[in-house]
Amino acid sequence: MAAGDAGIRHVGSNDLAIWVLDSGTSAAGLFTRSALPGAPITVTKEHIQAAPPRVLVVNSANANAFTGLQGIADCRTIAKAAANAAGCRPEQVLMASTGVIGEPLPAKRIMDRLPELTERIRSDAWQDVAEAIMTTDTFAKGACAQASIDGQRVTLCGVAKGSGMIAPNMATMLAFCFTDARIPEPQLHEMLLKSADRTFNAITVDSDTSTSDMLLLLATGKAGNAPPGTMDDPRFRGFRMALDELLRNLSMQIVRDGEGASKLIEVRISGAESDASARKIAESIANSPLVKTAIAGGDANWGRIIMALGKSGENMQAENLLVRIGGELVARGGQRAESYDESRIAQHLEGDEILIETELQIGSGEYTVWTCDLTHGYISINADYRS
Amino acid sequence: MAAGDAGIRHVGSNDLAIWVLDSGTSAAGLFTRSALPGAPITVTKEHIQAAPPRVLVVNSANANAFTGLQGIADCRTIAKAAANAAGCRPEQVLMASTGVIGEPLPAKRIMDRLPELTERIRSDAWQDVAEAIMTTDTFAKGACAQASIDGQRVTLCGVAKGSGMIAPNMATMLAFCFTDARIPEPQLHEMLLKSADRTFNAITVDSDTSTSDMLLLLATGKAGNAPPGTMDDPRFRGFRMALDELLRNLSMQIVRDGEGASKLIEVRISGAESDASARKIAESIANSPLVKTAIAGGDANWGRIIMALGKSGENMQAENLLVRIGGELVARGGQRAESYDESRIAQHLEGDEILIETELQIGSGEYTVWTCDLTHGYISINADYRS
Repeated sequence: MAAGDAGIRHVGSNDLAIWVLDSGTSAAGLFTRSALPGAPITVTKEHIQAAPPRVLVVNSANANAFTGLQGIADCRTIAKAAANAAGCRPEQVLMASTGVIGEPLPAKRIMDRLPELTERIRSDAWQDVAEAIMTTDTFAKGACAQASIDGQRVTLCGVAKGSGMIAPNMATMLAFCFTDARIPEPQLHEMLLKSADRTFNAITVDSDTSTSDMLLLLATGKAGNAPPGTMDDPRFRGFRMALDELLRNLSMQIVRDGEGASKLIEVRISGAESDASARKIAESIANSPLVKTAIAGGDANWGRIIMALGKSGENMQAENLLVRIGGELVARGGQRAESYDESRIAQHLEGDEILIETELQIGSGEYTVWTCDLTHGYISINADYRS
Repeated sequence: MAAGDAGIRHVGSNDLAIWVLDSGTSAAGLFTRSALPGAPITVTKEHIQAAPPRVLVVNSANANAFTGLQGIADCRTIAKAAANAAGCRPEQVLMASTGVIGEPLPAKRIMDRLPELTERIRSDAWQDVAEAIMTTDTFAKGACAQASIDGQRVTLCGVAKGSGMIAPNMATMLAFCFTDARIPEPQLHEMLLKSADRTFNAITVDSDTSTSDMLLLLATGKAGNAPPGTMDDPRFRGFRMALDELLRNLSMQIVRDGEGASKLIEVRISGAESDASARKIAESIANSPLVKTAIAGGDANWGRIIMALGKSGENMQAENLLVRIGGELVARGGQRAESYDESRIAQHLEGDEILIETELQIGSGEYTVWTCDLTHGYISINADYRS
């Protein structure tokens, strides 16, 4: 991997990253569900099905989204240039872009840097590539995990970026994960889907889903392990746990770095009609500006959680609800709990990890969403910065 | 009507309003769709179906929501006291409350003020009652309209409150409208429903739906006109237009006074698959924190409108979309419009009335939503103020 400055950002920091992948790498990807996806989403979805990938090219500062046929043409030109530089076919090039929507991509500036970048590929440039893909992120995001398959140690490493325009929908913003394990595409895809459902798809900063979300898992197969029979192969249990750990780690870094965030908020719903219902309720709370501002202000205003529960549109009965903040019961039996003590809640809200729990006591559905508070910082970043 | 201070707010301003209604008044009401409605919602829905109303009691500073059986009992006690004071039956008393959720209502303080308030009822205390029902509102909201039925002039007047926790769902916050026209309940209800669908149900400040929303239309019948045959009776065309005007006026006052708002934003969608689809798309744009902060910052970042269109989940084709800001075309044919001139958009965004239009060109569905921008003021109000 290598990072460089293609001059897209106009501020002299790196904005281009490239990975060259071993032959025999299998790939799984999750992509934004936006009805108006960026050009790299369209082209990468096509390429990932066409051939085993050999190159991944990522730029920040321009999303190449809503750029029409020119945006697609720019992707094809870049793929051709990257394929030339790395010695593979254009459909073996995956691409991702993040940044401003609707501005033409300066494709030539990217192409011009590719030969040089492919020449200085290193296997330890994680910090460089993590920094090159940042936009409003305040820190570079990376993580590693390990597992063993048949006694053979395998490694999983990934980088991610994302801070605003974050809402759970397939993948959220950009994340690129790599492993030396040998796992064919169908099982790799299933493992990624399952793991992302409770990690990348369970985070939200501002309920806004990007045009450019992409989560890739690339397995080089260098470890030489025997591939799994099915996704649930018990030999891969450790691998799946390590994948969960990696995706959770990266997705939590995104929430912690949510634009303007000062607190990480975990919204845990249980006893709902179904997991899907629990998820909608958790999202209703996690996306409520009034809940998020109350937490920013350290205000034990639990009535706003009641408001967000009520507006979720999901089945619930007031008298069955149990609502807890920081483990302290605040509501039971359709009203304020008798043991309610505002000072204990206020104390929990002074911390930087906030836990909101609601038991509906009508079923066994459960889901947890992670979000951050809504502060003046979010307004400052987004009312002033073109992102 | 009359207003007084029941000491609920603890700051020495009026927090209680009462209306005494002529006998023969017919009533129509729209109520929050929250699954956890406040006690006055439950009791008023019951009373409005049981008998023609004679009294309306409204308090601010406490929503009497999520207050369990005690909250309902408090409503019944207040209804009894109001009925005694006004000489009617308890089920002829309508009630509404707005303010903090989850705190027990100081019902006795309200009851103690009712005899005195009913004694000093006046027909011209609109400003007093409009002020008494305010919470985070920065100005009192009232409006009047006139129409003629069979050559007879009728008047419509209303007051409203609302500033935060505003999202379209049946009625939004509190609005009480009155007319001297004679219209039986079934037609009155249909007229209110139709008029609210494109006014009160088409506004959003922060996507948060209150537990306490209530919109009432009370027709005293004093004008003595012959009642309408059906809702579409052509004799009542002028009345329906005046009702539209009244509700639009009041709902626009709520959006203009949105917490921290500096700009009124009109989001007009046309050419969608259906009106329902147009509405979802309009709400996706109007509730997007990134669109709202861009407008707060005067940033011509139209890519965020593309993001909000894409995440709406509705049917659309990039190449058919026409997006305009302030009448200026910004996107066409799946990319930035050739005529795009950022300076003209920036100039429009300097004003305090912003127009965002999107034509989907795939059907004839249309809907317009009004919202406001998202500023530091919203954070200041909600991270600090207990509402």
